Amino acid sequence: MTDKKPGFASAFFVEIRRFAGPAVAYKACFEHTPPAGESGPNCRFHTCMASDQRSFRDIAHVADTTQLSGQTEEWDTPLTPAFVREVMRALDRGDEEVVRSLVMPLRPADQAELLELVRSDELRALVQALGSDLEPDVLSELEEAVRDDVIELMAPEDIAAAVQEMDSDDAVYILEDMPADEQREVLEQVPAQERAAIERSLEYPEDSAGRIMQRDLVAVPPFWDVGQTIDFLREAQDLPDEFYEIFVVDPSYRPIGTVPLSRVMRTKRPVPIEDIMDVEQTLIPAETDQEDVALQFEKYDLISAAVVDENERLVGVVTVDDVVEVIADEASEDIRRLGGIVSEESVSDTVVETTRNRFSWLFVNLLTAILASVVIALFEGTIQSMVALAILMPIVASMGGNAGTQTMTVAVRALATRDLVPINTSRIITREVLVGFLNGLLFAILMGAVGALWFQDPLLGGVLAAAMVINMIMAGLAGILVPLGLDRFGIDPAVASSVFVTTVTDVVGFFAFLGLAAIVLL
Amino acid sequence: MTDKKPGFASAFFVEIRRFAGPAVAYKACFEHTPPAGESGPNCRFHTCMASDQRSFRDIAHVADTTQLSGQTEEWDTPLTPAFVREVMRALDRGDEEVVRSLVMPLRPADQAELLELVRSDELRALVQALGSDLEPDVLSELEEAVRDDVIELMAPEDIAAAVQEMDSDDAVYILEDMPADEQREVLEQVPAQERAAIERSLEYPEDSAGRIMQRDLVAVPPFWDVGQTIDFLREAQDLPDEFYEIFVVDPSYRPIGTVPLSRVMRTKRPVPIEDIMDVEQTLIPAETDQEDVALQFEKYDLISAAVVDENERLVGVVTVDDVVEVIADEASEDIRRLGGIVSEESVSDTVVETTRNRFSWLFVNLLTAILASVVIALFEGTIQSMVALAILMPIVASMGGNAGTQTMTVAVRALATRDLVPINTSRIITREVLVGFLNGLLFAILMGAVGALWFQDPLLGGVLAAAMVINMIMAGLAGILVPLGLDRFGIDPAVASSVFVTTVTDVVGFFAFLGLAAIVLL
Repeated sequence: MTDKKPGFASAFFVEIRRFAGPAVAYKACFEHTPPAGESGPNCRFHTCMASDQRSFRDIAHVADTTQLSGQTEEWDTPLTPAFVREVMRALDRGDEEVVRSLVMPLRPADQAELLELVRSDELRALVQALGSDLEPDVLSELEEAVRDDVIELMAPEDIAAAVQEMDSDDAVYILEDMPADEQREVLEQVPAQERAAIERSLEYPEDSAGRIMQRDLVAVPPFWDVGQTIDFLREAQDLPDEFYEIFVVDPSYRPIGTVPLSRVMRTKRPVPIEDIMDVEQTLIPAETDQEDVALQFEKYDLISAAVVDENERLVGVVTVDDVVEVIADEASEDIRRLGGIVSEESVSDTVVETTRNRFSWLFVNLLTAILASVVIALFEGTIQSMVALAILMPIVASMGGNAGTQTMTVAVRALATRDLVPINTSRIITREVLVGFLNGLLFAILMGAVGALWFQDPLLGGVLAAAMVINMIMAGLAGILVPLGLDRFGIDPAVASSVFVTTVTDVVGFFAFLGLAAIVLL
Repeated sequence: MTDKKPGFASAFFVEIRRFAGPAVAYKACFEHTPPAGESGPNCRFHTCMASDQRSFRDIAHVADTTQLSGQTEEWDTPLTPAFVREVMRALDRGDEEVVRSLVMPLRPADQAELLELVRSDELRALVQALGSDLEPDVLSELEEAVRDDVIELMAPEDIAAAVQEMDSDDAVYILEDMPADEQREVLEQVPAQERAAIERSLEYPEDSAGRIMQRDLVAVPPFWDVGQTIDFLREAQDLPDEFYEIFVVDPSYRPIGTVPLSRVMRTKRPVPIEDIMDVEQTLIPAETDQEDVALQFEKYDLISAAVVDENERLVGVVTVDDVVEVIADEASEDIRRLGGIVSEESVSDTVVETTRNRFSWLFVNLLTAILASVVIALFEGTIQSMVALAILMPIVASMGGNAGTQTMTVAVRALATRDLVPINTSRIITREVLVGFLNGLLFAILMGAVGALWFQDPLLGGVLAAAMVINMIMAGLAGILVPLGLDRFGIDPAVASSVFVTTVTDVVGFFAFLGLAAIVLL
């Protein structure tokens, strides 16, 4: 910190960020001590974020030559800890003007991230401070839990104003999770035409293409030429903000082709659209699940795709930015579910919400753990006469559990990405059983030796080895068959596979080891 | 099956597919029995795939009125089991012509999927049958393991021809994993200019923006007007196949702005580009890791972004289709690693490869399992005098392991998506410990009761309950601190977290339960 002179603004902190966001941004924070007698907060912050063309080194030079003390760091987000702390301090002081001057220059996605980072009481203060300056785009960038909180803090007319300004897919995204009466209240304040479009989208099933599609699009008849098309684009009013291809439709509005924008642009004006359109295109029925939509985009490297209704008529367009979100969300969901988090959960949840979320899964696990204990209890006498069994038995169960989890993980992911399909299923089942057998054999040799040496009992080592082979084969089998079976019955294999697989490996592990011991050793 | 008349082609199988790929495709397979005396295979297949504008019902009608027997099914891929079987049969017969007639009409991504589906001997036959008809785009769609196999089957000059035809990012993708000498051999046959571009890209670190970027792009000076820009696009030769924005550069080729193509198109010819460009843009340094690139695309809903070198000069463009792949791949990697699959693995790996891949992780697990057994062995005497402990102890360890895995899963994913950042870390640690405590308390009550009733021993129930609380709190702590610690040391938390967490919960679980039992019960 430099000296503070009353009445002077002295920069005490310069932070230079070079992030992949705005080219290069720099921020200087000035501490201002007001002259004695003057009222006002004794400390003010001013932030300047510039996304300018000066290079990182130029700014470092500025910071250096102006003798600003401070630090130079590289961040990949404008939400540095120092920045967030400043916002928090301004909030605590109730200085809404400073809060706005800090937050408003951020891009909507960053504003959303800030809202997600703070505690719920801070969230309330922040939303209040921003007031009607809160941009509609921020709402659509928010994750669900926080978005619900923010919307609750907003007046219906503000929500309606925001909804009106949004693309139709974002509007649907905001409205779909609202309670029915609030939804109605907001929709009543939206102009009739937009309201009708939103309501039609809301009629499609949740997580379907109809929900994530954008209704504004550019469609032209095949007999127009490039010149007519460009003229139309220059005049038309209700076009989407950005679009990447032009759809060609027949008189009944069925898509018959598509032209990437770059091709329109590279073609001379008199050429008919018909001559440059691609006939092969990906049409997405509006009821398609968003996960299947994402797989199509991923596979065929699509940027946008036409959505059609049950009469094959063009009703909207899905763009890749929505799909990117779907891919990330579906992956997060799979990861969570595989880890035993069944319902949606986010870092901003409270303790009670989180505890409740996780309890049900742990309860199921408790039941399976008790089942395993019951199996052990069958061999109470055996353990009594040979405590070494109690010492070694967790190894058999644990190895089986881990091998089963490996197989299950690969199977669940392969099912999600459609790499595991009927045509290669039997080959993969065979492979997993063989892998289980081979690794079982290797670890049987290892553990057989360890067990025999530890307890000076070759026969115990033999029993341990045999149980290991049996359990590893079962692990391979269960690891592949359980996800396949769940998938066949329409249950998401990510949710329930692991509990079934580990139950199998626990029960089989304990039973094989203790059972063999009872027969061979006693 | 219908009657077979020699010399006549009788359709015996009609399959109608309505998938999100080509609008509507239908396939009719005709069985041809040659007239007596004529040689040739007695059974021929002909396939017709049309991506036409006729609706699903139209085709069903055709199938119906022409009295074709067969089945009608909906698939979201043209690679139906029946289709793949046909290809396999043609391969077995060595009928390369039929194989080509079946495979060539598929889109490149579907051809790639077919190559990924088949066994390695079938792959060889398939690649041979397709010969030089194998499209370059198929190569870039293949997953790594299969791509390596296919490339090994191709002559260097064929690879060079393919590389020349590809976008530069795809060429790099093909070449980067080749052995150095083969890479040189291929590159020698590529024209000097393209070779230089590819070699420059290969100098960037693996998995960096420099590797996934496309070198062909459209850059214009700010003083050009829209008309000049469109004329330039109509005349220029070496432009990318598709592009979505135009970059504005200064005389030293530093990006100073960007214009989405749709905006260029909607603006009148005399308007200067300068007036319609966005100054705020996302610049990606070429060394940026692809995962960070993906996070930027996801956050800011980008379609393409400029890549700059260390002098801030424009060197390429990353487009969202590459990013979609990165997001899916990185998610798959995290899922695999969390499930204990440390190295890359795919459904087409062999038994030996898979066994080797998984052995190392299982070996680490064996060591931790032995550690847990050593802890149990400390209490050999305690167990000897009370076998109920051996029966109940897996429950304590298992519940701790599952609770720890839940916390760890959330933490690992939140770290990957940058939702867990320094500013909210302490809040989340507190939350996880509290959640562990609360759930620990709930399950302590449950299990305490079960234990007490099962073995008619309230004191045993009390010990079980206390151990449960202790282990659940430890699970919460380890579940959050282990990933955070690994992340701090630059280790991917997805790889190593679970082994550390379950070691903690096993050791603490056994130690707390058996230790308390030794003190309280004996």
